Amino acid sequence: MEKLAENFSFSGMTNREHAIFEVGIKLAALFHQLIGAPIKNDDEVMKKIADGLKESISCQPFVKRVDCEIKKIKEGMTQTYTKQHEFDYTYIQGRNLVAEVEVQYEDWIAIGKVEWISDLNYPLMYVREVRQV
Amino acid sequence: MEKLAENFSFSGMTNREHAIFEVGIKLAALFHQLIGAPIKNDDEVMKKIADGLKESISCQPFVKRVDCEIKKIKEGMTQTYTKQHEFDYTYIQGRNLVAEVEVQYEDWIAIGKVEWISDLNYPLMYVREVRQV
Amino acid sequence: MEKLAENFSFSGMTNREHAIFEVGIKLAALFHQLIGAPIKNDDEVMKKIADGLKESISCQPFVKRVDCEIKKIKEGMTQTYTKQHEFDYTYIQGRNLVAEVEVQYEDWIAIGKVEWISDLNYPLMYVREVRQV
Amino acid sequence: MEKLAENFSFSGMTNREHAIFEVGIKLAALFHQLIGAPIKNDDEVMKKIADGLKESISCQPFVKRVDCEIKKIKEGMTQTYTKQHEFDYTYIQGRNLVAEVEVQYEDWIAIGKVEWISDLNYPLMYVREVRQV
Repeated sequence: MEKLAENFSFSGMTNREHAIFEVGIKLAALFHQLIGAPIKNDDEVMKKIADGLKESISCQPFVKRVDCEIKKIKEGMTQTYTKQHEFDYTYIQGRNLVAEVEVQYEDWIAIGKVEWISDLNYPLMYVREVRQV
Repeated sequence: MEKLAENFSFSGMTNREHAIFEVGIKLAALFHQLIGAPIKNDDEVMKKIADGLKESISCQPFVKRVDCEIKKIKEGMTQTYTKQHEFDYTYIQGRNLVAEVEVQYEDWIAIGKVEWISDLNYPLMYVREVRQV
Repeated sequence: MEKLAENFSFSGMTNREHAIFEVGIKLAALFHQLIGAPIKNDDEVMKKIADGLKESISCQPFVKRVDCEIKKIKEGMTQTYTKQHEFDYTYIQGRNLVAEVEVQYEDWIAIGKVEWISDLNYPLMYVREVRQV
Repeated sequence: MEKLAENFSFSGMTNREHAIFEVGIKLAALFHQLIGAPIKNDDEVMKKIADGLKESISCQPFVKRVDCEIKKIKEGMTQTYTKQHEFDYTYIQGRNLVAEVEVQYEDWIAIGKVEWISDLNYPLMYVREVRQV
């Protein structure tokens, strides 16, 4: 099946480039799937939501490892987000998500990361490492 | 804060109606947040994804209980969805999600459910029970 | 088919309560479907995204009208969100979405709204009006 | 800003590889943002939803062109999905989405595509072309 899929790709793609492409897909899938999920500042709740997403993204093709952490929201808070009242919680945003995904395509590994970069005011997705096994 | 929120509502709403409205919100939030998440036919993976969603929806206002089960995909299968090869997994669809949410608004409880109804070919959301505590 | 669906519901539900339940579903579907979509501060872009969502939510059962506006992001801006550079755009958040949905269930109409309430720091969903036709 | 973002990346990445990575991100963002949106088999409705998504994804970094088509659902239909009754519509799935995204990173262009491949029973994302301008 992997070979069948390969037939659709641009023939000039190297295995290294396939790995880089696949890690881009996974970072965006993770990000867009999780954004908007209700969350509160509670370690156990955050861990369970992150664990669920980790298992989900791990199902995707070529994924070897997913690390995902939902960070507590601290800046600009007008609430505690700990359910002091019914509306005291928030939604997962780019600002409080850090995740790393490792994919392997044939003999190449690409590791991608998404994290909030304050200077960019942006949840940047980038390739952290590419190597041959 | 709950009182402040109430000021925005139509004044003719009873507590029972508020509970019914809130359970509608929760069922749709759960459904639209989860749809599209990668999944495979593996009990542990399915449970972890369901647990994450359960914790997430439990953060929302007035929620007392969330039960969520992702069912194995059996009908119309051309694959096992158990990662026999890289593309052998699927996405969560209305067809394989069953969830129940209980909300309490003041002295009223409303229990809503979403499940696939074959005769409708549709993931129906409905109110299963309304009662006063 | 509508009658078949009704069989699943709690028998004590009035048509008025059905309308209120359905409008809750639609508001949350709209919100969770749109959250996270890339957006920039450009009237035409915002209108086209809002129009697409409006058509989508209008497909759902009992929907008579959907109004949806994506508001320009002004507060707390460190960027213009007008693509002055590649990362100068943002994502749709609860903060910049205003929508109103009208549903009709038999002879009852319920109008629901979602909008950002600064005092709650929350995208509040509420029933604005319920009336018999 | 683009240079600042580049500092986070693996230093061994070529511009060609950056383009390939970025197109992977865009395909997955498009897919996961759209999946689950209500839809019916009506040309105008489908076009408006596709147009909204196209504008949204076009906001993302390095995107030069987005083509997006939602295809009518024909196979396995037990309904017309044309709102013959309230539940006669469906949700956007991998099965009925075809999209192509073109990104440019410095002097390299990568064109990616997502489409349903029956033999894989899978919405395959692949790189269709990579070239230098």
